[in-house]
Amino acid sequence: MTKYSAKQWFVKKRTEGNINIQETFELVTKELSTDDLKEGDLLAKGLLFSNDPTQRLWISKDSVEGKLYRAPIVDGELMQTYGIYEILESRNAEFEKGDQVFARGNWADYCILSPDTTGDAGAFLFKVQGDPTALLTFGVTGITAYFGLLHSGAATSKDSTIVVSVAAGATGSVVCQIAKNVLGIKNVVGITGSDAKCEVLKKTCGCDYALNYRSPTFKADFEEATKDEIDLYFDNTGGETLNMALLRMKEHGRVVSCGAISLYDDDDTKGAPVSAGISREAWLQVIYHRVTIQGMLVTDFADQIMKALTDLGTWVAEGKLQLIQDIWEAEIEEVPKGMLKLLRGENTGKLITKVIYP
Amino acid sequence: MTKYSAKQWFVKKRTEGNINIQETFELVTKELSTDDLKEGDLLAKGLLFSNDPTQRLWISKDSVEGKLYRAPIVDGELMQTYGIYEILESRNAEFEKGDQVFARGNWADYCILSPDTTGDAGAFLFKVQGDPTALLTFGVTGITAYFGLLHSGAATSKDSTIVVSVAAGATGSVVCQIAKNVLGIKNVVGITGSDAKCEVLKKTCGCDYALNYRSPTFKADFEEATKDEIDLYFDNTGGETLNMALLRMKEHGRVVSCGAISLYDDDDTKGAPVSAGISREAWLQVIYHRVTIQGMLVTDFADQIMKALTDLGTWVAEGKLQLIQDIWEAEIEEVPKGMLKLLRGENTGKLITKVIYP
Repeated sequence: MTKYSAKQWFVKKRTEGNINIQETFELVTKELSTDDLKEGDLLAKGLLFSNDPTQRLWISKDSVEGKLYRAPIVDGELMQTYGIYEILESRNAEFEKGDQVFARGNWADYCILSPDTTGDAGAFLFKVQGDPTALLTFGVTGITAYFGLLHSGAATSKDSTIVVSVAAGATGSVVCQIAKNVLGIKNVVGITGSDAKCEVLKKTCGCDYALNYRSPTFKADFEEATKDEIDLYFDNTGGETLNMALLRMKEHGRVVSCGAISLYDDDDTKGAPVSAGISREAWLQVIYHRVTIQGMLVTDFADQIMKALTDLGTWVAEGKLQLIQDIWEAEIEEVPKGMLKLLRGENTGKLITKVIYP
Repeated sequence: MTKYSAKQWFVKKRTEGNINIQETFELVTKELSTDDLKEGDLLAKGLLFSNDPTQRLWISKDSVEGKLYRAPIVDGELMQTYGIYEILESRNAEFEKGDQVFARGNWADYCILSPDTTGDAGAFLFKVQGDPTALLTFGVTGITAYFGLLHSGAATSKDSTIVVSVAAGATGSVVCQIAKNVLGIKNVVGITGSDAKCEVLKKTCGCDYALNYRSPTFKADFEEATKDEIDLYFDNTGGETLNMALLRMKEHGRVVSCGAISLYDDDDTKGAPVSAGISREAWLQVIYHRVTIQGMLVTDFADQIMKALTDLGTWVAEGKLQLIQDIWEAEIEEVPKGMLKLLRGENTGKLITKVIYP
């Protein structure tokens, strides 16, 4: 029997409104023993955690059972994350000590990964092949970009204007690159929150226009960039930017509703329902211009993931797609700050927490 | 040369907010002479006017060029309507005196119909065959129901729940009947604004549930009627009802966004933009449940209208579809009140103004 003194982040209380780390999360020190392992379980060490906006939704006050695309995480449960873990002890014939695995695990230095808790029959648990940061970048958000753009968005015509919000984020930066470098779309417009990120969008992601929504000239810049109207709007933000885009859609244009990060940290359920920020005028344009809005989740494309990863890998090899990563080093005590960095838009590309062991 | 003293309704000033007839419209008496007719023109007498919610949009303050699906009607122009007119004088080889025509004409006892002003190359000008009220009922709103349900809505599975708002209106009442009597949909839920209209929905339109949104139990009634969640929501109202429906959509459910009458009479452009009434929570369901929202206009299906009218006619003959009409008799001075009746939901089925000549 071996014992590990584990530090694990639990959800103490799902907070309303802007998230507060102290009130929401609690670091618990707990002794894990190899005796605790059931058949199939792994005792694992956290190496890299994927920071994804959707994690904010898992702990939203109004994400109740049946109103989220997965089981919500409730008060008193371990916080979850996609991540890369090293196997320290194995009771599973498929894995052995020293293996690195991709898993839906926990914010923890040491935790137990079980096929029961890593998703439907352990679907989110497999051995890492190749570069683990690339796996987090393409395996979670890259495939979202791939399916969102090519399937839900049905992007085809080169002579299009495609607008992408949260364009310098993990998903958006891949959408922009596929649109420009693979599909050869004429006008790719990326929206982000700083001039530095605009530079990345132009130099690395191939955007024809890179717009800073915090700029005083944003509205005019947006009108200039979309002067031919929008064929496809890939929405990661919801709210005001979605509203602006709806007002500029071409007839029969499409909106892929992939995320709504501007709304995630605003789950105030005390008073009146929080508005989605869509105006009467914008909604009428949906009718007048016969716009299609398509909600999408990558989970619908589970049977095509290998094809997607193969294509993404090929495009990397051909120089059409670059990994844009923001790797942040943190001791386990600091891990929840990654969620804040994401919600505040401090990252460029995929935000990955690299856990440091002192 | 023959002269006619015509009474014609003009748009005096496109009003903001709730429409006010006195401020918005002006009745002008004008002398029309056969000498005024250009080649192709007809001098016509108004017999029946179709009352359609979309007419409110043609004169909305924020319906500016390029932001409506057709040319807006601006201050100082004649008010337009779809209607049935009798030809009094003809300078057009296709029509002769005494013919009854369907036209996009004017709110007027006497007016000039010109291929130039009745839509693209006179597309909205043709001779009436059969019952003229049936033509207004099926030719304008019935075909909207047909294409909205069968094409944009792609309704197929019998084991579905279909929810229809403004269900006792001209479009909604046809949607409900096709869903139940032609497609054999298991659960057809109609939403309307009075108990009397609920009776019509149940007895004539085949609704399994008929809900009065003004009832104090509406919310609970809605939850009961949609306990299996919604496969297809046919939206004619927008706003609060749309919001409720989005919160109850099944995974991969569809919304046909055909109208938004609850928003039409609310074009206050003085202050902040008027909200579409969609909450954060409802918008997130669009993503979580991968909902498709499809804006639709009947004009996209121009090449299939004869097929639609043939099908609708066949279903009438087979007893599967009933004409539900609300024919209101009015002297020309009272005609604008039809728009108010519609916006207040005073009609059951297709509201048609029959012009009385004293």
